[in-house]
Amino acid sequence: MKIALLGHGTVGRGVVDIIDSGTGALEVSRILELPQFCNEARMTSNFDDIVEDDEIDAVVEAMGGLEPAHGYIVRALEAGKSVVTSNKAVVAEFFEEFVDAARANGASLFIEATTGGGIPWIAGLMKVRRVDEVSSFSGIMNGTTNYIVDQMSRSGAEFGAVLERAQGLGYAERDPSADIDGIDVKNKTIISASVAFDVACTHDLPVSGIRNLTKADLEFFASRGQSVRLLGKGVQELGSYAVAVEPTAVDARSMEAAVPDNFNLLSCEGATIGPLKFYGQGAGSLPTGNAMVQDLLDLAAGVRPIYDFSRGLAYDPTLLSGDYLIRAAGFEPSGAEPAGAGYHRVPDITAEQARSLLDEALSVDPTAFMAAIG
Amino acid sequence: MKIALLGHGTVGRGVVDIIDSGTGALEVSRILELPQFCNEARMTSNFDDIVEDDEIDAVVEAMGGLEPAHGYIVRALEAGKSVVTSNKAVVAEFFEEFVDAARANGASLFIEATTGGGIPWIAGLMKVRRVDEVSSFSGIMNGTTNYIVDQMSRSGAEFGAVLERAQGLGYAERDPSADIDGIDVKNKTIISASVAFDVACTHDLPVSGIRNLTKADLEFFASRGQSVRLLGKGVQELGSYAVAVEPTAVDARSMEAAVPDNFNLLSCEGATIGPLKFYGQGAGSLPTGNAMVQDLLDLAAGVRPIYDFSRGLAYDPTLLSGDYLIRAAGFEPSGAEPAGAGYHRVPDITAEQARSLLDEALSVDPTAFMAAIG
Repeated sequence: MKIALLGHGTVGRGVVDIIDSGTGALEVSRILELPQFCNEARMTSNFDDIVEDDEIDAVVEAMGGLEPAHGYIVRALEAGKSVVTSNKAVVAEFFEEFVDAARANGASLFIEATTGGGIPWIAGLMKVRRVDEVSSFSGIMNGTTNYIVDQMSRSGAEFGAVLERAQGLGYAERDPSADIDGIDVKNKTIISASVAFDVACTHDLPVSGIRNLTKADLEFFASRGQSVRLLGKGVQELGSYAVAVEPTAVDARSMEAAVPDNFNLLSCEGATIGPLKFYGQGAGSLPTGNAMVQDLLDLAAGVRPIYDFSRGLAYDPTLLSGDYLIRAAGFEPSGAEPAGAGYHRVPDITAEQARSLLDEALSVDPTAFMAAIG
Repeated sequence: MKIALLGHGTVGRGVVDIIDSGTGALEVSRILELPQFCNEARMTSNFDDIVEDDEIDAVVEAMGGLEPAHGYIVRALEAGKSVVTSNKAVVAEFFEEFVDAARANGASLFIEATTGGGIPWIAGLMKVRRVDEVSSFSGIMNGTTNYIVDQMSRSGAEFGAVLERAQGLGYAERDPSADIDGIDVKNKTIISASVAFDVACTHDLPVSGIRNLTKADLEFFASRGQSVRLLGKGVQELGSYAVAVEPTAVDARSMEAAVPDNFNLLSCEGATIGPLKFYGQGAGSLPTGNAMVQDLLDLAAGVRPIYDFSRGLAYDPTLLSGDYLIRAAGFEPSGAEPAGAGYHRVPDITAEQARSLLDEALSVDPTAFMAAIG
């Protein structure tokens, strides 16, 4: 099967490395590159060379970003070529458009590498929903923030010091906002919910990150027998669903609290299967490349992922609610009780209300931090 | 697709419940039952009614035990019917014969439910080995023993008391030997190695269980920052492989130590994918039934599992070696050093040597216990 690769960065190189080291049926016949980097016969800087080449069955998009990735994916699908992508931002933004274009043109869309890197999470969700409704999912979906929390917990270092270490190791970008403010997890949560619940998931969900998490916060939660993890989550019930991204207190003896370094742990639950968890490398050249090659092998084997957003599930934020702990100097939420260490416990609010409350708190104390406590 | 069910116990009923509650393409058209329990038109006590029925595409074997399951599976495959089984004992014993019979008759063999219950472990291994060689696997593969160790650790109760509780909950059989002596894990290890390494795995591997584990043992390991779990394990290197089943000391902060109750956690590793872990219900009517229904849906979708034992990997027990801790009153292994609490540390022996040493120790002290310490 001949494929074209868009984007020859970390992930794209992983795909080429794995295919070139021998997976039989696959051949990278074209690579889209900037003109100044085109140093192989198969490289081109003109997307037309790819989309107009009838011998190319599949386009592997590993460019990242919204444009031109979005336009290239749509043009590839419209040309009847299947698309394998690792680009969570573009899939979260244009999932429905891609699904429609794929269906209309007899092409397929493969997205395993967008969420959980090399972990067979999307495949796992699709398998679960063949038999069960997925009643809920949640996950440590971002390796950078897990590395930061894990290192802070283990070494007692402060957020800034660990972030610098993460940047030195290449786990964090120079501008870490997408990771530490939860944007990356937001994209993965939208994708997971779309697959798990068969819905074109809302883009307007409550999202908070761990930018303001301190060593003292972790010590406070540890004194309660808990750790804190940044989780993407979704629930489905009686024709409605809700999603959120938020720091969450987890039992110190839980699987989630045991996730080390920059690993991911993704969980889902169905009526007959019970809880399932999938753990592995959520990023990196070879694990993510592996997921894309697996998608290509599935395509070659005749697997055709089906996304069906026609059920019309309603977004109902009241489905995700619980108690929260908030720390904000000079800010006392109404109905809250002091919980020690500068924290207040806010009982039974939705994740959306919690996000609004955090905004209020941040306007008073820009270092405010809040976590869901289940 | 019409299927026949052999065995209408816990797992078989799970399969029927899931299919009857609506998975579309599947229909249970015959059920093999004892004559005195045949109270539905689709029930028969005569296997000929099933194997000679040309309308039946697949046979679901959930009887357990070696015979008549073995004979029925071979006859079904020889009749060109695909077989889905949850029977770890029969697959571990006759895997190669089943694979040959399936290949010779254009039928397929599906074994997801044999290992890890509802966890997509076999599918996970098969997917990993499409791209990577599986360099190693290990796992908490038996829910009963994990429940016992977890409860002993959490409540400080003794082995016997927790075993009784497990029996009361239906987690443990009245004769718990297959679980606590590692026989169940042995079968699952043989199956996992066969799939992961593409080898007709040896049946002659070192196996020890947790029958002699005490509260004091767990306290001793806890004082070293460790917990103990019964693991099935395998490694592959340079054309050779090794397998073993043994209690193993794991870091108290590891994912393995965090596995609660009767859950399973199965891990594997490949060069490009890195480590992957799969967690879920390793037993039970609905999770195991779910795994069998997933196999049936795969069969209906045209998936044909390929097992290829022709690579000729050699069994080399030296590939699994390390240090061990052994407790046996009145027994001092040569080359060992006292490690406190009645324990001796035996450096750098193979799992096979460790099993022999444990036999020696048990002849002196029938309460002896030993664990690998990695």
